[in-house]
Amino acid sequence: MDALGLIKTRRAIRRFKKEPVSDKQIEAILEAGRWSPSGINNQPWRFMVLDGVRKNFLAEYTVYSSIVRGSDKVILVFLDRGESYHYEKDLMAIGACVQSMLLYIHSCGLGACWLGEILNKRAEIEKLLAIPKGLEMEALIALGKPAIIPKAGKRMLLKDLLVRPKTKVKG
Amino acid sequence: MDALGLIKTRRAIRRFKKEPVSDKQIEAILEAGRWSPSGINNQPWRFMVLDGVRKNFLAEYTVYSSIVRGSDKVILVFLDRGESYHYEKDLMAIGACVQSMLLYIHSCGLGACWLGEILNKRAEIEKLLAIPKGLEMEALIALGKPAIIPKAGKRMLLKDLLVRPKTKVKG
Repeated sequence: MDALGLIKTRRAIRRFKKEPVSDKQIEAILEAGRWSPSGINNQPWRFMVLDGVRKNFLAEYTVYSSIVRGSDKVILVFLDRGESYHYEKDLMAIGACVQSMLLYIHSCGLGACWLGEILNKRAEIEKLLAIPKGLEMEALIALGKPAIIPKAGKRMLLKDLLVRPKTKVKG
Repeated sequence: MDALGLIKTRRAIRRFKKEPVSDKQIEAILEAGRWSPSGINNQPWRFMVLDGVRKNFLAEYTVYSSIVRGSDKVILVFLDRGESYHYEKDLMAIGACVQSMLLYIHSCGLGACWLGEILNKRAEIEKLLAIPKGLEMEALIALGKPAIIPKAGKRMLLKDLLVRPKTKVKG
């Protein structure tokens, strides 16, 4: 599949089979994140991989508990505020990093759901997991072998996303 | 090339050949951005494509003027604050959208550089381009046919990006 096909066929996977994701696969997923672009190449992303009881206790901190419980593993993605040089740009780098991982996950027949709602409980989770000071939780990626692959989500039309320049600078 | 290879071989391209990027290619690049994930699927990204004089005047607003001038086209990526539901998450969605476009650009033999430094002149540029109120410029993607493909940038080791859980929750 070409890159555009990969991007267009990626779905948020919310139901998983009871099949393990191997350590080798997790390493390759994190490798995809690691090679993402960031401003001044500061690589502000940090990762924590959780499974079993440590994963499942997170389910108590989100309305999407069934996704967390049903997944084989979760990857928590943190912004290292100590490495941060520009908060907005660092958040965009984290987003790029998450998308790299989601695309790679999809490319090898696995599935994932990017959960943001759990950030409402960021302080509690960072305390319970004894996250080092300076690391700010930005995303949770729940992943596993897809049990149900949903239809494509809706997207706005390209013409409605395009802004035309209205300027006296002549084109 | 597989998805991990694509992610790992993408480079920031700063020197371009004098060859045009077709409208069809631009449309496919924006299509890659359009199919990115966003929180509550709010699709907060908006795009403006500039070339010629309109592109080149932007070169005056960045220290990376040669990249802007040498590129065939630039894509400005905006956050629509009117569609924003959570600023941090929306910025991550914009980052995911940019990465989708960068990966697609790379996959079809084109090259791009994600410029953030130009945000220092955000207010001036938004005024000069008469950007509608509520749209906030977040990124500039300069693109074209690569003239020089740099070696891989450095990345931290995976072991230094991994945070181990230290918690009383038993794994």
